Amino acid sequence: MVQEIDLGITCDMHVHVREGAMCELVTPKIRDGGVSVAYIMPNLQPPITTLDRVIEYKKTLQKLAPKTTFLMSFYLSKHLTPLLIHEAAKQKAIRGVKCYPAGVTTNSDAGVDPNDFSAFYPVFKAMEEENLVLNLHGEKPSVYEGDEEAIHVLNAEEAFLPALRKLHDDFPNLKIILEHCTSESAIKTIEDINRDVKNAADIRVAATLTAHHLFLTIDDWAGNPVNFCKPVAKLPNDKKALVKAAVSGKPYFFFGSDSAPHTVQNKTKYMGVCAGVYSQSFAIPYVAQVFEEQNALQNLKGFVSDFGNSFYDIKDSELASLDRAILYRTEQIVPQTISDGKETNVIPFKAGDKLDWSVRWESR
Amino acid sequence: MVQEIDLGITCDMHVHVREGAMCELVTPKIRDGGVSVAYIMPNLQPPITTLDRVIEYKKTLQKLAPKTTFLMSFYLSKHLTPLLIHEAAKQKAIRGVKCYPAGVTTNSDAGVDPNDFSAFYPVFKAMEEENLVLNLHGEKPSVYEGDEEAIHVLNAEEAFLPALRKLHDDFPNLKIILEHCTSESAIKTIEDINRDVKNAADIRVAATLTAHHLFLTIDDWAGNPVNFCKPVAKLPNDKKALVKAAVSGKPYFFFGSDSAPHTVQNKTKYMGVCAGVYSQSFAIPYVAQVFEEQNALQNLKGFVSDFGNSFYDIKDSELASLDRAILYRTEQIVPQTISDGKETNVIPFKAGDKLDWSVRWESR
Repeated sequence: MVQEIDLGITCDMHVHVREGAMCELVTPKIRDGGVSVAYIMPNLQPPITTLDRVIEYKKTLQKLAPKTTFLMSFYLSKHLTPLLIHEAAKQKAIRGVKCYPAGVTTNSDAGVDPNDFSAFYPVFKAMEEENLVLNLHGEKPSVYEGDEEAIHVLNAEEAFLPALRKLHDDFPNLKIILEHCTSESAIKTIEDINRDVKNAADIRVAATLTAHHLFLTIDDWAGNPVNFCKPVAKLPNDKKALVKAAVSGKPYFFFGSDSAPHTVQNKTKYMGVCAGVYSQSFAIPYVAQVFEEQNALQNLKGFVSDFGNSFYDIKDSELASLDRAILYRTEQIVPQTISDGKETNVIPFKAGDKLDWSVRWESR
Repeated sequence: MVQEIDLGITCDMHVHVREGAMCELVTPKIRDGGVSVAYIMPNLQPPITTLDRVIEYKKTLQKLAPKTTFLMSFYLSKHLTPLLIHEAAKQKAIRGVKCYPAGVTTNSDAGVDPNDFSAFYPVFKAMEEENLVLNLHGEKPSVYEGDEEAIHVLNAEEAFLPALRKLHDDFPNLKIILEHCTSESAIKTIEDINRDVKNAADIRVAATLTAHHLFLTIDDWAGNPVNFCKPVAKLPNDKKALVKAAVSGKPYFFFGSDSAPHTVQNKTKYMGVCAGVYSQSFAIPYVAQVFEEQNALQNLKGFVSDFGNSFYDIKDSELASLDRAILYRTEQIVPQTISDGKETNVIPFKAGDKLDWSVRWESR
């Protein structure tokens, strides 16, 4: 029975840490959860679309967690220009740009129309030239009335896949991530796009998988707002496809927790519950649980360290710490709340459940 | 533009009124919502399985709402015997028996295994002889692990349909209702079973449709616990099929609101939200809204009065009141809460929305 695994420089390529008190609470938890490198989402209010703000935000985070490496991003909107992209790349201020279709999730009101990305093609061209990553929230907004082919939370991701293929066709060298995949059809599309890829360095379209979507299906969020997130967890066949992809050892599937903290109050409402699952505090232990259940611990390091760092081309020289994450076997119970002892409380994923693993840090 | 419709003796053939303070609050609302005859669900805690309790419960309700006609039911469980069924029928204490698969909804813990009804066949035979109705909550419990054909909240009703067909095959004269249909496949099954039926009196398998399932799809309860109910509202094509069935004028589809009140507190939780939508206070106006939108007001009386009363064979002599429900056009806003002014509050369906109709009563 494996007791310990050296996971090296772990990375979580999809992290929400918000601002203010919530940011102060959850940012240090990135390391507690076993993650060294975190790719930070820009959906603040207002969204991050300027150099000044992204630099300022990174400074704030670095102060809260000096040993965590923060990779920053812009929020795709009409405020971005090719010039700004080039300047941000030159200053190494961002690693990518996140695209939110308008209205599909938390703070996505400033998002774009996924039916027509053409207005952003000059920005994508600049990104392609600068080797920046396009992070896609891959959902079409729900459409119902009078529409034969209705779009709803269950098929919204599948409906987005043609747009992903078109972007890849139009920008074959642009690195694209379909974030937080939730469906069997998305997994198949990513595999199909990568069918001829021989080397990890040649991957242009990858997918992140969260921890919670490796556990949840629709029954888990029906009646349990704490498990409600966007994209919603789907059907059992979808979960099976996600788990299979995660443990596969295929380098175009890697970890992005999409840990999205909301206060208890915002999860405890009879209307308008905020979408998002908070998983940062135990990010790597959750994933280890799934890999062990699948007898695939040998592929865990690829999923939580190697593949993400390779896709983003992370160099040792840019790391805030060279400490290695050591996964070790120990029982722990997920607490009912993660709190700052004042007014900010967040319910962790799988609160009250037993986990079999924890992470400590060892200097290189 | 139609301004008024005489709906006659309206009936809601699926009503939850609970006990205690909630019962006192919602029982008088049956008439406020435009309903004359109410078929009352037996899923109290503990469930109603004895003559004494059902008689007592009816007395309580009649006191709270003297002009409402209450049709009572037993909860199918191992406590029921053919002898009890015959005795209850003789005393006219019940009109039917409600079958809950164990664990699928509020207070269904004492329910049965829908994979094998054979233990209840003597009870069903007694019911068939007494012309009592079998009310089915038509869902299979969710099954996931290790099962190729997983059952989840979205296909649970469809998975139940073979059990419905088998019951009808085995008891061709037993009156059966598939309660609160939510799926296109259920509608098709009911239509198929009735394909050769020429007279309403020959219908043996019918379906009730709620008000809320004529409005809601999955997107409406994702993140909105107030709209979470069992069976869950499904996809746009399902809703279309339900609306089409409701307005069709086919006598085997009739109204059963499944109005299921829960306190605001029980709807405002981050885990374990109670399943159920409260629609009693505006039951008929909600339905009228849908029928008018579908240009089918001429079929409304069939759906909310004639077909249900015919299936249950309701006689004037057993009515608590002969008052006719008059639907009339008037704008009203659904209030944010329905309250007893003390501690019991329930959120009505479509709180804050405008309705175009109301109901008043006229003596015959």
